[in-house]
Amino acid sequence: MKAYKDYTKEELLVELEKLNKQYKKYQNKHLELNMARGKPCKEQLNLSMGMMDVLNSNVDLNCEDGTDCRNYGVLGGIDECKRLLGDIIEVDKNNIIIYGNSSLNIMYDCISRSMTHGVLGSTPWAKLDKVKWLCPVPGYDRHFAITEWFGIEMINIPMDNNGPDMDMVEKLVSEDESIKGIWCVPKYSNPDGTTYSDAVVKRFAALKPKAKDFRIYWDNAYSVHHLYPDNQDFLLEILDECAKAGNPDIVYKFTSTSKISFPGSGIAALAASKDNIASIKKQLSFQTIGFDKVNQLRHVKFFKNLDGIKKQMARHAEILRPKFELVEAILEQELKGLDIATWTKPHGGYFISLDTLPNCAKCVISMCKDAGVILTPAGSTYPYHNDPNDSNIRIAPSYPVLSEIETASKILVISIKICSIEKYLNL
Amino acid sequence: MKAYKDYTKEELLVELEKLNKQYKKYQNKHLELNMARGKPCKEQLNLSMGMMDVLNSNVDLNCEDGTDCRNYGVLGGIDECKRLLGDIIEVDKNNIIIYGNSSLNIMYDCISRSMTHGVLGSTPWAKLDKVKWLCPVPGYDRHFAITEWFGIEMINIPMDNNGPDMDMVEKLVSEDESIKGIWCVPKYSNPDGTTYSDAVVKRFAALKPKAKDFRIYWDNAYSVHHLYPDNQDFLLEILDECAKAGNPDIVYKFTSTSKISFPGSGIAALAASKDNIASIKKQLSFQTIGFDKVNQLRHVKFFKNLDGIKKQMARHAEILRPKFELVEAILEQELKGLDIATWTKPHGGYFISLDTLPNCAKCVISMCKDAGVILTPAGSTYPYHNDPNDSNIRIAPSYPVLSEIETASKILVISIKICSIEKYLNL
Repeated sequence: MKAYKDYTKEELLVELEKLNKQYKKYQNKHLELNMARGKPCKEQLNLSMGMMDVLNSNVDLNCEDGTDCRNYGVLGGIDECKRLLGDIIEVDKNNIIIYGNSSLNIMYDCISRSMTHGVLGSTPWAKLDKVKWLCPVPGYDRHFAITEWFGIEMINIPMDNNGPDMDMVEKLVSEDESIKGIWCVPKYSNPDGTTYSDAVVKRFAALKPKAKDFRIYWDNAYSVHHLYPDNQDFLLEILDECAKAGNPDIVYKFTSTSKISFPGSGIAALAASKDNIASIKKQLSFQTIGFDKVNQLRHVKFFKNLDGIKKQMARHAEILRPKFELVEAILEQELKGLDIATWTKPHGGYFISLDTLPNCAKCVISMCKDAGVILTPAGSTYPYHNDPNDSNIRIAPSYPVLSEIETASKILVISIKICSIEKYLNL
Repeated sequence: MKAYKDYTKEELLVELEKLNKQYKKYQNKHLELNMARGKPCKEQLNLSMGMMDVLNSNVDLNCEDGTDCRNYGVLGGIDECKRLLGDIIEVDKNNIIIYGNSSLNIMYDCISRSMTHGVLGSTPWAKLDKVKWLCPVPGYDRHFAITEWFGIEMINIPMDNNGPDMDMVEKLVSEDESIKGIWCVPKYSNPDGTTYSDAVVKRFAALKPKAKDFRIYWDNAYSVHHLYPDNQDFLLEILDECAKAGNPDIVYKFTSTSKISFPGSGIAALAASKDNIASIKKQLSFQTIGFDKVNQLRHVKFFKNLDGIKKQMARHAEILRPKFELVEAILEQELKGLDIATWTKPHGGYFISLDTLPNCAKCVISMCKDAGVILTPAGSTYPYHNDPNDSNIRIAPSYPVLSEIETASKILVISIKICSIEKYLNL
């Protein structure tokens, strides 16, 4: 296929007319399709229905140390659940606190606690004139929303295939004491699908920030979320690397079962150094008497161990893989050689990240919306919803069925083509 | 019985020797008894085992509006659960947000949010030089622990049979803009078992605080927790009263099913005015995608409606009543007429509150501990663990079995007698 940039103006106009007709046809169908959020589909949820059977009125609800899970207590979570989640993210159970159903809530609470009480004895951030945060981009909108909500100034850090630009990260954190953290989705990143290289992880572990209360927010949301279990990415374990680098306290690691069991009713956890855990547990002792231990027990009884988790994730992959491959096939078939877009082919996670020509993403997302296809709003993958190139589009193919994905993807590529031609023609 | 104060010194010494012998006997038994926390007992937990059966892999996990409870979303809780909890605390479902398993966590989050973001647009409390809080005493230690953790200065407000001293409350809040809140357990209060009178509730609703961001933290923990369903206390509904008084935003009301279903795996809720709810939901949208809807559905399927809740609470009362009555009988039998202690006979809730002679509570609790009976630590019912009279003891009879309660209560009365005599004798 000839690249659009090599088309004559006349050829572009002909192509545009053809595309506009195709677009109209779709528009007339009054579709309602949604590829906006990384939401598991019904078939994926059905994989965990057995979890509703492992506990019943005949089952002993004591955990292995004899504690009655129904009653108050056990701040930090039951041992067997700490072990299960620890195995998922390769961390010892003593370095884990189990919370409620949302890892986002844990991250929010970590920042909130730092605002009011500081970090391991530092000045509460609310008492500082300025707090800044590093944001690898494109990244996760809900991360950026938390830091924005707390009035924290966000600084974009470019990503490449190895992870964030570590030269920039190292320079900034070593110079500016007001930089207190960085958001990372280190494996199958949201939305790029990038897994940080060993070198990047080691450079993170060895950071020497000017701010002693700087923390890496390591959101390991997709640790076992492979699309190709036989062709998976590998990520160095960060707590271990930080300890080896003499930097044990620099990282908070987060995980959850939201995309393993039920997104609404999973369990989430924080992993960190001994000192961080002790300090956070102290705060937690004022916040709650304990999180839902019955649900912790339910997860352990259902998955049993890491092997059970892996089998479950292979089943998730079976459902998700065709959806990703369908989007990728349509992008390939329709856009290859046109030189108007690039996109990722992730080995795991929940997103395909697509970059249009500069200044086309808003146009594309708006056209999609007008044809009944909801995508993540333009700019969402950047702090303040401001994509400086206006080019990144996050595609979330997990929820719709294949026929919907096919239609939505076709509308997407037509929109990309139209917006690109309009750009070339300065329309 | 003759009051100890009317004993001669010689009589007191004889009595003391006898009591010390009794005490020693108990001490030699090396008991381990605990009446420290308001923790439901195993029989109470068993009342809710059916809750483990209402959901299984054959049950539709959609809620009434068709939302799949397994998936992400529905910030604020599913309608049918908002209705159920609304019925329990007499509030419309539109004024309710359902959270996770802990109302304490909601209260903590409310104060934390006020610290970082203020209240309905006010200055964040973390930016103020001083924040103060009113604490009706005796009260709930975990309340006081939260305000202490946030560095909020606590002011004691005496309680009587009608509730807090409202003259003092009105005067203080109208004069001091740094007073931002008050802790209330308005029904079957912890530990006194007091239910606020209509007049007190109306005076709360009509408060005219100098601080526009002042909030009443109305912890309705024991709304349906009667010991005598046929002789229950009644509490005016505060949201309604506040609205009538032109003060709709002044109150946050909290509740949970912790002592209805499972303490570790219940559901908790906040009720407030429309404006408060909207503002809090905005913040919540940064904190989480949603709380555990499957557990919300589980509670609705099990209890069905307020009638189901009432039946359950009557069963709880059947279990709890004999425990309270046993403590009360032993106190009555052993202490009546001695004029060394007073105690409450609550119609509901989880505690008996006992007052010794001044400067005896620490002695009593310490003696009990040395004989193997753990009570809530001395001073716990006061801010900063400082009971100015050193006289209040919170007795929590729910968890132990009757034989344990009997032994523990006997050790308690012996300890009270010994400490009182020692005080009279200036030993």
